[in-house]
Amino acid sequence: MSSGQEIFSEVVTVLGTAAFALSAVLAASKRRVDIFSLIILGLITSIGGGTMRDLMLDVPVFWSQDLSYVWISISASLFGFVFFGLLKKRWINEFYLHIDAFAIALFAIQATNKAWELGFGLPVAPIFMGLITAVGGGIVRDMLMQRPTLLFESELYAIPIALGCAMHCVVLSLAPQWSVLSSTLCILLIIAGRSLSIYFNIGVPNWALLGKSSL
Amino acid sequence: MSSGQEIFSEVVTVLGTAAFALSAVLAASKRRVDIFSLIILGLITSIGGGTMRDLMLDVPVFWSQDLSYVWISISASLFGFVFFGLLKKRWINEFYLHIDAFAIALFAIQATNKAWELGFGLPVAPIFMGLITAVGGGIVRDMLMQRPTLLFESELYAIPIALGCAMHCVVLSLAPQWSVLSSTLCILLIIAGRSLSIYFNIGVPNWALLGKSSL
Amino acid sequence: MSSGQEIFSEVVTVLGTAAFALSAVLAASKRRVDIFSLIILGLITSIGGGTMRDLMLDVPVFWSQDLSYVWISISASLFGFVFFGLLKKRWINEFYLHIDAFAIALFAIQATNKAWELGFGLPVAPIFMGLITAVGGGIVRDMLMQRPTLLFESELYAIPIALGCAMHCVVLSLAPQWSVLSSTLCILLIIAGRSLSIYFNIGVPNWALLGKSSL
Repeated sequence: MSSGQEIFSEVVTVLGTAAFALSAVLAASKRRVDIFSLIILGLITSIGGGTMRDLMLDVPVFWSQDLSYVWISISASLFGFVFFGLLKKRWINEFYLHIDAFAIALFAIQATNKAWELGFGLPVAPIFMGLITAVGGGIVRDMLMQRPTLLFESELYAIPIALGCAMHCVVLSLAPQWSVLSSTLCILLIIAGRSLSIYFNIGVPNWALLGKSSL
Repeated sequence: MSSGQEIFSEVVTVLGTAAFALSAVLAASKRRVDIFSLIILGLITSIGGGTMRDLMLDVPVFWSQDLSYVWISISASLFGFVFFGLLKKRWINEFYLHIDAFAIALFAIQATNKAWELGFGLPVAPIFMGLITAVGGGIVRDMLMQRPTLLFESELYAIPIALGCAMHCVVLSLAPQWSVLSSTLCILLIIAGRSLSIYFNIGVPNWALLGKSSL
Repeated sequence: MSSGQEIFSEVVTVLGTAAFALSAVLAASKRRVDIFSLIILGLITSIGGGTMRDLMLDVPVFWSQDLSYVWISISASLFGFVFFGLLKKRWINEFYLHIDAFAIALFAIQATNKAWELGFGLPVAPIFMGLITAVGGGIVRDMLMQRPTLLFESELYAIPIALGCAMHCVVLSLAPQWSVLSSTLCILLIIAGRSLSIYFNIGVPNWALLGKSSL
């Protein structure tokens, strides 16, 4: 991996980690929860998905090798706790949703690349690693909070991620020399898909729902 | 392992994988769920238990080495989505329950054998690997769906599996040369136990319930 | 590790394992649950946290190397099932809570030491390993039972554990020769924190709750 890619990858992870931790603060806003539990929920959300990925890839858990992710997550949770009033403001919330879209896109493609470099179940399994890394932490957070997980939301969430990761895997298979360009484009594709879904309130069409168009 | 065992083992996994994915379609039938989430739930149900087993055994995750399980699971979910009307028919549902019994029996004994060959916590831990592989994916599926897991069902589900795996471990300890025969018999034993429970609606007796026969 | 430490460590694990299994019996007391599911829930509670720890540390799962933990957990669940009437008695219950405090303290510091010896994400990650080992099994148990997990309890539970593990990590960093003394003191510190919280019904202060003191 080139040094440019490494730096890009690190910047992305910092932003994404903070966005994920803040998502836990927002998700917890209707519960009676203390600052300590909030930090734990933030950590689970921000590093949980990548931890599952690393366990399946059988590589060292990423945050054990670079604790900065842990500090970023804790700092973001503390920030969210103190400035909680701000987080609930409408424009902040919309802004936040786009940051979150950015984070899931970056984490997903980053994980796809990591799994691809390790030759993990090529050419399909890296897509799952992308998905798990992007949504795994949030799903565990929702299970801990006894909330319905995003698998049952009508919004488009996991679908743009899966499409972006799949497209990236196609490029990695056919034209590996375009890896960096493809990473960038697929990240933008996921962000676009997610942002359009938020902005125009696009959901899954009826024919794609179980029992609506079945024989 | 002989070639015959390997082929048997693969056929079994194909059938079981499909049955598990279909179980996710049935479990989701009362929820608003789209085809994409259905595929994810199907994958979790069909390969989740084996994934937990492989993580604990510290061997490569099985589906990263042979993606056919992934394709089978996705195909079965798509099939279940399209022919959902059929799945809800009474005779199909009963038929399905027996296929599911077949799947859990095969997966459980297969996992017991895998753990035994690796010398994992002999002679008892392979029983847990059998149980986890057979029911782990379904339990995570139920947790994601906020349904009570099978641990709180009154039907006999995990008990026949544990008995079958335990019996197989006894044979592997005392007469390892009978491994293939014992695998077959213990699979049949689990299927029989589960099928009888379904057919005669046999549940756990009252004295085995917490608080009913305590001092 | 000296032989004295090893013996201490083993005695501690035996007691803690039994206490954790009994906690599952108590947690299940309002559910319709049979003896077999109780044993499974007991196993998840008592060896689940340590299993997560070992997966992240990438070392063999501890109970696969020493099955005694499994037997202790099963025996404790059977004991709890038979003498369930006793467990519900008020003084027994209070006694039990202190045993549980003892168990989480021991497991947490033991796990912190294990992670430290492996050089896992020093100096901070061992604190998480302590926390996960102490509360991970109980959290999964509560999720399986569809109960709110301890992260949303108002009692002090995870906070004394984190403080004790953090203090131990400070000593291991600055004065590693005092490891044994520090282990003992930090175990006592966690027990004291937890016991005082139970005895005086101390909870998280209001300013530490999300939304109560935010800007």
